[in-house]
Amino acid sequence: MKVADFQAIFAKKDSDKVDVDRLFAVQEMIQAVRKDGDQAVIDYTNQFDGQSYTNPEDFKVSLERLKASWDHLDPTLKAALRVAKERIERYEQASLYSDRNGDEISYVYHALESAGFYIPGGKALYPSTVLMTVVPALVAGVENLVVTTPVFTEESVTFAALYLCGIRDNVYAIGGAQAIAAMAYGTETIPQVDKICGPGNAYVATAKRLVNGDVSIDAIAGPSEILLYVDETTPVDAIVYDIFAQAEHDQDARTFLLCESESFLDKIADRMQALLPSQARADIIQASITNNHYAIADTRERLIAVLNAIAPEHVSIQHRDQDAIVQQIKYAGAVFKGVYAMEAIGDYVAGPSHVLPTGGTARFSHGLTANDFRTSHAIIHTSKETYQTIGPAAQMMADAEGLDCHAKSIAIRKEV
Amino acid sequence: MKVADFQAIFAKKDSDKVDVDRLFAVQEMIQAVRKDGDQAVIDYTNQFDGQSYTNPEDFKVSLERLKASWDHLDPTLKAALRVAKERIERYEQASLYSDRNGDEISYVYHALESAGFYIPGGKALYPSTVLMTVVPALVAGVENLVVTTPVFTEESVTFAALYLCGIRDNVYAIGGAQAIAAMAYGTETIPQVDKICGPGNAYVATAKRLVNGDVSIDAIAGPSEILLYVDETTPVDAIVYDIFAQAEHDQDARTFLLCESESFLDKIADRMQALLPSQARADIIQASITNNHYAIADTRERLIAVLNAIAPEHVSIQHRDQDAIVQQIKYAGAVFKGVYAMEAIGDYVAGPSHVLPTGGTARFSHGLTANDFRTSHAIIHTSKETYQTIGPAAQMMADAEGLDCHAKSIAIRKEV
Repeated sequence: MKVADFQAIFAKKDSDKVDVDRLFAVQEMIQAVRKDGDQAVIDYTNQFDGQSYTNPEDFKVSLERLKASWDHLDPTLKAALRVAKERIERYEQASLYSDRNGDEISYVYHALESAGFYIPGGKALYPSTVLMTVVPALVAGVENLVVTTPVFTEESVTFAALYLCGIRDNVYAIGGAQAIAAMAYGTETIPQVDKICGPGNAYVATAKRLVNGDVSIDAIAGPSEILLYVDETTPVDAIVYDIFAQAEHDQDARTFLLCESESFLDKIADRMQALLPSQARADIIQASITNNHYAIADTRERLIAVLNAIAPEHVSIQHRDQDAIVQQIKYAGAVFKGVYAMEAIGDYVAGPSHVLPTGGTARFSHGLTANDFRTSHAIIHTSKETYQTIGPAAQMMADAEGLDCHAKSIAIRKEV
Repeated sequence: MKVADFQAIFAKKDSDKVDVDRLFAVQEMIQAVRKDGDQAVIDYTNQFDGQSYTNPEDFKVSLERLKASWDHLDPTLKAALRVAKERIERYEQASLYSDRNGDEISYVYHALESAGFYIPGGKALYPSTVLMTVVPALVAGVENLVVTTPVFTEESVTFAALYLCGIRDNVYAIGGAQAIAAMAYGTETIPQVDKICGPGNAYVATAKRLVNGDVSIDAIAGPSEILLYVDETTPVDAIVYDIFAQAEHDQDARTFLLCESESFLDKIADRMQALLPSQARADIIQASITNNHYAIADTRERLIAVLNAIAPEHVSIQHRDQDAIVQQIKYAGAVFKGVYAMEAIGDYVAGPSHVLPTGGTARFSHGLTANDFRTSHAIIHTSKETYQTIGPAAQMMADAEGLDCHAKSIAIRKEV
């Protein structure tokens, strides 16, 4: 389709994202956890996650379970996780902002004291999410880490990845809105943290929205997205598997395929049809493609404009003019340039965190970095001379705002 | 009092910040604005702000009103506003992060396309808030600015400050939760923006909390705070007026006075008593001091620990060892060092924005800067060699997560 047709369809789909019933239900859960602590966490976990916890010891994941999970991991997977961890570390270390020292105004950074991580469980396990959230926090220098994850098995690759990161305690086998509330406000067992990270379902996302401000959150994650911008020089099967890789996440995952040639789009569509039936997750891919796949052919100018308007989580440019196109991208979670920089390599090992803004929020927010686990402040040290020069302007403005003691606080220094 | 006594009192005060009734009421207002647009904005403004608007033209602030406000402003106040604007501009220009170009991973910044500003009206007018929010956005390069302010007079110093900043249109005389909703989702008249900034009352704060995620927000502002750390070398009257300057904002404003000497605290308390009755806003100051002033004497180690735990909006260190003390501060909105760097100079002209985290949120967030009006993303351009080196690790992790097409998307490049 053309950009204009796409815009008409797409605008309608996103018209109302708030689910008021869910908002109220989650607010009640948060209030319950604030009031009843561990007991509320236990009750919700038994109710929603089919556990039969009776006391907080039941949801603590012991050091023995973390260590056994790592020890029993397949050695090649161990090696792969180590490669990923080292790449992420190196990238984040190079990304840290430096303090700025000025004559009269300096600006300094400090690591947060604590951070909490929500690692999804459920249908699939995501050791990559452990690395992509915990490693940036460790590089920032956060000392107190708390992890919640709805993983109820004795051992798991999630626990193994946590062990690799040096996590030895404060891991809790709980999930849902109650896990977010527990980390935001603390319970008898679970420590309160300053920031909460990691993706989750709609209840987790709503809980993060509601606790935000009392703690910091990374972002409210929606379904995953990729936008591919390709031309005839891109291998068709590479494009098809890039689309399928996104679509296999879940049926809400969105894929945008942009091309200046309509006939090349047809060729890709045919190949998608041919390859689809043989995929392990063909059902999910089919559902995602049917509802949330958009193939758009138009002029480059219009395609770039729609890309910046969508502001997709992942943008993959595989095109003979890829350098020129990448330069025109303003809003994206992350940009992958060239045929050897497929999104899947970024999901695991490239370096930058795969926790990226979704649903157009890249228009105003960025992917998680080590800097997001630090806070900063200015140090203002105006000299007597500067005070004498700019003090009168400040005093005048204080007078204009009717703040008498502000003005006096400035004036009194004349006598010092 | 001692730090331990203070902690016991303070912990209780902040035990439950959520007002559920207000949350639900504001959510309803937001839904109404999303559904009925301008008409809902008009209805709420007439109901809550005593206006009699009948159509959107009534809340548009014309270029003529903006210009007349500036033209008729007192010339010395004009000069003062210009001084402040230039200092803020210069500081923010020096603070902008630079793009990082790497061999395989770069990181780039782009200005947001649009931003909305909430400038409080009501009891007092705050031209300083205009400068401290709008100027950072302009330095960042934001092109589309929208301003809402519950100022219903024909001319005002708020409008004058907007005119000075180059604002010529998109100024709306509306306030409250409806103004936040209008900027977050757009109406027939008011454009939707990517980020909303500026302080407001509890309804405005709740609205910002609820729209956050659909747009970006600066911070949820609570009552203003200062923490002063002084010793006998600090002039007593300077300390007293610094406290009064904070207390005169409103009765919820909080003041913390830390000192290693109990007898010096007594001396300050006596002087506060003596100077209070002659202040213009003696009633507000009295109420604030009675409910929200804490004078704490203890060891330096304990005082520094409590400072970092409170993480106050403003910290003013006026002390013979001020350099050593400032170095130990991890969490604060802004730090003012020395007797000539009183907070009031930072409120207006020092440079860094006075929009700062309150209520302990400096533990995980920072004051507004031009960088907060930009977004950023990584550009990943892995070479064929890197792909060959790290691709297998990514493929292994994709397999472990059961994401078959992720693995195929990596593997297929071997044939490229």
